[in-house]
Amino acid sequence: MAVGENALPELKRVPGIRIGTANAGIKQTQRDDIAVVAMCEDSSCAAVFTQNAFCAAPVLLARENLQNNPRWLLINSGNANAGTGRQGLLDAQSTCAALADLTGTQADAVLPFSTGVIGEPLPAKKITAALPAALETLSENAWQEAARAIMTTDTFAKGSSREVSIDGRTMTITGIAKGAGMIQPNMATMLAFLGTDAKIARPLLQQCLQQAVEQSFNRITVDGDTSTNDACVLMASGCSAVPEITRDHGYEAFAEAVLQVCQNLAEAIIRDGEGATKFICIVVQRAATEQEALQVARTIAHSPLVKTAFFASDPNWGRILAAVGRAGISDLDIDRIVMYLGDVCIVRNGGRADDYREADGQRVMRREDIDVTVDLGRGEAAGQVLTCDFSYDYVRINAEYRT
Amino acid sequence: MAVGENALPELKRVPGIRIGTANAGIKQTQRDDIAVVAMCEDSSCAAVFTQNAFCAAPVLLARENLQNNPRWLLINSGNANAGTGRQGLLDAQSTCAALADLTGTQADAVLPFSTGVIGEPLPAKKITAALPAALETLSENAWQEAARAIMTTDTFAKGSSREVSIDGRTMTITGIAKGAGMIQPNMATMLAFLGTDAKIARPLLQQCLQQAVEQSFNRITVDGDTSTNDACVLMASGCSAVPEITRDHGYEAFAEAVLQVCQNLAEAIIRDGEGATKFICIVVQRAATEQEALQVARTIAHSPLVKTAFFASDPNWGRILAAVGRAGISDLDIDRIVMYLGDVCIVRNGGRADDYREADGQRVMRREDIDVTVDLGRGEAAGQVLTCDFSYDYVRINAEYRT
Repeated sequence: MAVGENALPELKRVPGIRIGTANAGIKQTQRDDIAVVAMCEDSSCAAVFTQNAFCAAPVLLARENLQNNPRWLLINSGNANAGTGRQGLLDAQSTCAALADLTGTQADAVLPFSTGVIGEPLPAKKITAALPAALETLSENAWQEAARAIMTTDTFAKGSSREVSIDGRTMTITGIAKGAGMIQPNMATMLAFLGTDAKIARPLLQQCLQQAVEQSFNRITVDGDTSTNDACVLMASGCSAVPEITRDHGYEAFAEAVLQVCQNLAEAIIRDGEGATKFICIVVQRAATEQEALQVARTIAHSPLVKTAFFASDPNWGRILAAVGRAGISDLDIDRIVMYLGDVCIVRNGGRADDYREADGQRVMRREDIDVTVDLGRGEAAGQVLTCDFSYDYVRINAEYRT
Repeated sequence: MAVGENALPELKRVPGIRIGTANAGIKQTQRDDIAVVAMCEDSSCAAVFTQNAFCAAPVLLARENLQNNPRWLLINSGNANAGTGRQGLLDAQSTCAALADLTGTQADAVLPFSTGVIGEPLPAKKITAALPAALETLSENAWQEAARAIMTTDTFAKGSSREVSIDGRTMTITGIAKGAGMIQPNMATMLAFLGTDAKIARPLLQQCLQQAVEQSFNRITVDGDTSTNDACVLMASGCSAVPEITRDHGYEAFAEAVLQVCQNLAEAIIRDGEGATKFICIVVQRAATEQEALQVARTIAHSPLVKTAFFASDPNWGRILAAVGRAGISDLDIDRIVMYLGDVCIVRNGGRADDYREADGQRVMRREDIDVTVDLGRGEAAGQVLTCDFSYDYVRINAEYRT
């Protein structure tokens, strides 16, 4: 089940970045479940990782190896290699070493990524055995295959591409991502891999990625759970004919395109939220600060009562107001609050708007895409969070995930 | 659906406190939906209220009237009178004034309480019309009837009594409560009414109630939503033969009995959590501070992924660890974490315990009552939170509540 459009768009190749996939049998399906990504020499690579203290072995290793001019990514789905203690770290290291051996690189130039069940030993031997097959398929045209190989409970593959022209020359940014549960705004909240042929130094690339993640993946939530494995990587091969991106040359256009790709991927993750039947955009405006706006938006987005009301297409705005009221804004003046469902004003002066009719609220709630706007009447700041509803299928998917 | 024992125990009468109930037709069922409570002269009364900024009209009025030697409570279920703006306050005032007229008291000596749907106008006329019938049934033996009249989505009535003997004389504490959703640890999280015939001055009574609530209702959560209407009241009639309770006379025994009644009611609310099939006690020990222990326990208790795993009887301990990891403890050393499901050690040194077998975890998870113990290995403090699982029925109940 997914909300709205979900066809994978054309994913443009990124010169200098090649991808191979294979079926290592981790998930015991016919689908590929590992992907390797090769960056050409002189590439730079940026990444952000989960803020969960209990981060998985591959996150620990990838964070460390990020400092060593990474040349390869090694990604598997079906097993998170999290909660696996010392053996988990050894397993992550051994798979990276195997890829390094096969490709003549240093083991510490490989970044490992895992997603799937927590607490099961990583089947390192299966992964190692499948590496030659994955390397055989290496191609600049395999972003789609990789988007499928990294899926877990996702119901559709997620990807996005943008081209940026500077001085008549073009560069490309392509990204893929996987969701679909354990999604909450606290770092990247999933796996996402972006590549570009732009030439850009690592510090600026890292800054660009962090800003884009803050405005995209950190503004979505399915269930408020931050995964142990989340990571987002941006690789820049430097193969484009566009001269090096610097703060004074092309950065704005490049950063905007990276942000658009990240936002497209983030939106796709929410549209494929576990059990989602509604795509909900919560905007909090006229807040004192952006942080306050996001705090209120997230409290609404995390409320199981609000989310079940959306599932029922029930304009139960009292639950939204109750969430606003418990969001921790100390001196909130509830009499100034105005709330819209879509274009229908539901609350004014802290109570039901005089001209509100239930039928109007229901008309909005029956849509698949719903905007909620809360005006706090306190200042000039605003913030937006994307989320989905809470359905029977969310319970079913997560009650059955391991069985 | 409810977990475990749920028969209403014998509720002992409290000399000096009389209760009447009636069917005002708010919920359009045959069940009584209003209750009035009369306190004898010289009673003292303490109360705590929701910390939701968006608190309902009756909360605003009750908080104000608490300062005026309250003599009456006026309680209705079926309508929360929340999000009803200025008219809601007028409605709360008019029903209190009507009760005051009929009983010859001051309107500001009546504390109103409402629970039910948010955002619908209070049917004040229906309530006023039913007051004479409620007053006709006034009796010291009607705690059971009141426990039923205040129910909303509750599947069983909740009450508890304790007797305390001091110097050969006895006093009684009886309490009733209603749940069952919008329950989270941030003040009382529901309606609860306790009465005692102890003689005790209001400041000490208020302190006793606040401490008991902190250790009972503030340690439970169904869904992390704090209601707009939560309130907990403790009335002391002073009719007991026990001399006045003071800090130096009988306070400890009295406070302990109040705490026990509150804890019994809090546990009953969780056992009747919306859609609950499991009763889960989460203990976090060896934390640096109690606040830290509670923070970790609440993060576990609020995780939809943890709650759906309990519903599935799935010992998916990785989800619990992931919740520990995102609980916001900045310098958490995950290698020191030990975790038990019941008496089965599942995690040691941050990974799966060597001697753990899945069958042992499953044996514990199949129980209706499950203890989770997390040892942080950081200090000497501990904290406990009660919660329930997250089932299809939670979604059904909350998706259908208004329809």
